[in-house]
Amino acid sequence: MAKKATSGGTKTARDTGGRTNARIKARDAETQSKIVTLADNVAKRALSGAEPVITVPTRTKSNTEWNAKKGILQMGKGAQERQLFNLSQAKSFMQTMLHSSSIKDLIAAEKTLSLRGMFYKGLHTVAGTKEKTFQDQDESDGILEDLEVSLGALREELHIFAKKAGTIVGNITLVDSGDEIDCRRMGSGGYAIPSIVESDIMQFKKCDAKFVLHVEKNTVWSRFNEDRFWEKHNCILTEGGGQPPRGVRRLLRRLNEELGLPIYCLLDCDPWGHYIYSVMKQGSISLAFESERLAIPSAKFIGIRAKDYYECELTDDVQIALNDTDIKRAKEIAAYPWFEKHKGWQREIDAMLKNGFKMEVESLITKDISYVTEEYVPERLRKRDWLD
Amino acid sequence: MAKKATSGGTKTARDTGGRTNARIKARDAETQSKIVTLADNVAKRALSGAEPVITVPTRTKSNTEWNAKKGILQMGKGAQERQLFNLSQAKSFMQTMLHSSSIKDLIAAEKTLSLRGMFYKGLHTVAGTKEKTFQDQDESDGILEDLEVSLGALREELHIFAKKAGTIVGNITLVDSGDEIDCRRMGSGGYAIPSIVESDIMQFKKCDAKFVLHVEKNTVWSRFNEDRFWEKHNCILTEGGGQPPRGVRRLLRRLNEELGLPIYCLLDCDPWGHYIYSVMKQGSISLAFESERLAIPSAKFIGIRAKDYYECELTDDVQIALNDTDIKRAKEIAAYPWFEKHKGWQREIDAMLKNGFKMEVESLITKDISYVTEEYVPERLRKRDWLD
Repeated sequence: MAKKATSGGTKTARDTGGRTNARIKARDAETQSKIVTLADNVAKRALSGAEPVITVPTRTKSNTEWNAKKGILQMGKGAQERQLFNLSQAKSFMQTMLHSSSIKDLIAAEKTLSLRGMFYKGLHTVAGTKEKTFQDQDESDGILEDLEVSLGALREELHIFAKKAGTIVGNITLVDSGDEIDCRRMGSGGYAIPSIVESDIMQFKKCDAKFVLHVEKNTVWSRFNEDRFWEKHNCILTEGGGQPPRGVRRLLRRLNEELGLPIYCLLDCDPWGHYIYSVMKQGSISLAFESERLAIPSAKFIGIRAKDYYECELTDDVQIALNDTDIKRAKEIAAYPWFEKHKGWQREIDAMLKNGFKMEVESLITKDISYVTEEYVPERLRKRDWLD
Repeated sequence: MAKKATSGGTKTARDTGGRTNARIKARDAETQSKIVTLADNVAKRALSGAEPVITVPTRTKSNTEWNAKKGILQMGKGAQERQLFNLSQAKSFMQTMLHSSSIKDLIAAEKTLSLRGMFYKGLHTVAGTKEKTFQDQDESDGILEDLEVSLGALREELHIFAKKAGTIVGNITLVDSGDEIDCRRMGSGGYAIPSIVESDIMQFKKCDAKFVLHVEKNTVWSRFNEDRFWEKHNCILTEGGGQPPRGVRRLLRRLNEELGLPIYCLLDCDPWGHYIYSVMKQGSISLAFESERLAIPSAKFIGIRAKDYYECELTDDVQIALNDTDIKRAKEIAAYPWFEKHKGWQREIDAMLKNGFKMEVESLITKDISYVTEEYVPERLRKRDWLD
């Protein structure tokens, strides 16, 4: 595999032009050394007659802790051993080694691969058996997450990318893989946010924007872009296609952390919108080990709020009745430790339950086509009327 | 509604800078006159004591014809009257009038709206009743398609956009809403293809590319972009997130028609991949009235082919068993008039059924990470080995 390290030739030549090649190399060298250490430890134990074993931190709810001080979800100290000579662990042990080896190849070849690609790369029939190395992609994806936490290296650092989603426009110039992306000149389509946005791939060049407005849906984004909201209000406008993927979350986190930009989230008034906000702000259980690099504890929920029905004098056309699942989900979210002690959020979820209905951002169109861009958001910003 | 025609001010000012404002205005004027004519005819009938009625071409399978000469699906001559004084038609008659009026407002305000937005814009309780104007968005979407065919105006011309999906990079410079988009300098993310790509919004400025490679999934697109396939092979690289939305299909059609670029499609070897190709090439039943502007009769299917399993010496790791639904679907597709008489496609579908398995583009990774970009596609192009 990865037999053609030279095939990255054009790309490497390009890198010297624009990309901070030295930074990529340093990061890759560090990741490689982590993988080699992992393999060395296994080999050492084997050669000394001990059983080969690796330790994998546990990615479960019970091993997830709420760090109130930092305002993020974090992984606890729980870890499991994965032994080669244990019938129930041998397969995942070997899968972990197999993917480690693939990643080493990837890094050496200076290439990245999708999660699906990694599944195929590792897939083969185990010699002398009829057994496949992986049952399905889910099994492969799980092993990759194990590797992330075991190695303490992000998926991006392992050269693995996911399906991308999300777009950006606004008063910022990015440099992505050596190309200068002026987000002020991105027409009606916008720049597609890539899956990997680490600082060695993407740099911030010139930013005039004072904040980021992140909206849930790309149709809402188009409304804001068409009204040139980002130009009038000197900001950056992003969307993540619903629950934003890691690339979008990481980019927002970097904009917040490195450039000090506040992040305002315009999401639907429903449990899904609240959950998206919760994940963006605090992180998620399944990716708790990533919170330190993905969560944005200072992110603000600018709306839609349950009170808007009355304050904005909306008609009942905007009402979408809460169903049983919604109500159950809303109560679960209200019980999250970071919402449980937050009076504003308790009131918000309570008000939504009392309303008995959800509201979408797009329903503000019942007031006027551009009500959301010209009145709603500007007023919320001016009055500093948000939940955080 | 649309009370703020002035709010398009910044945009309009911008237009004079880059956008071909005159062309947009001419198109909008034409669409407006179509809507006014529709309304005038209704008013005239009413004033002369006759029953208000509109005629809507029928969008059904039975009213879809295969035009073998043009190589596209077309809508037949079937049409239905929609009468105001008919209990079963009164509601859809009024819905059609309501949406016509909204579109007139939209065009006057120089704004565009999403399908969901149109639903909300038209939604209200009918005066003196407890009846809502629309049951749900599906009902609203259907009326908008009716209007497209009745008026002979594309959804884009009615100022309505859909969720966008798809990205582009390559040897072309686009101008979108006055912004120059150099697709050679789009980093790892690419330019997000907007929902509306008509020539008054998007122009082709400088194109050196000799063809377009369209791939099914955005993860595959990332592999080709990272290997800078478009640079090495002087082409344009696009993806449409599975079944490409109208914006992507229209853009490809324009690249094919206006710049004479051949379109090569790299899709999975499964009924879904074959269906995507069929829609891109011939059009679909539900959008048959659009085929003349969306279909690309000369589009070529470059792979994955059933024979590749043997020719590329793949292992059984790439096999995904066909299930009953797949088999049924494959037989349906084989019976499409444009596939039925096409020996190549009959052989292709037959070979897939004989194989008994599907294959994804990403499964070529089992050969090598960049096998698909460095060997598979270049060889197919060199040998002119495709289905068309």
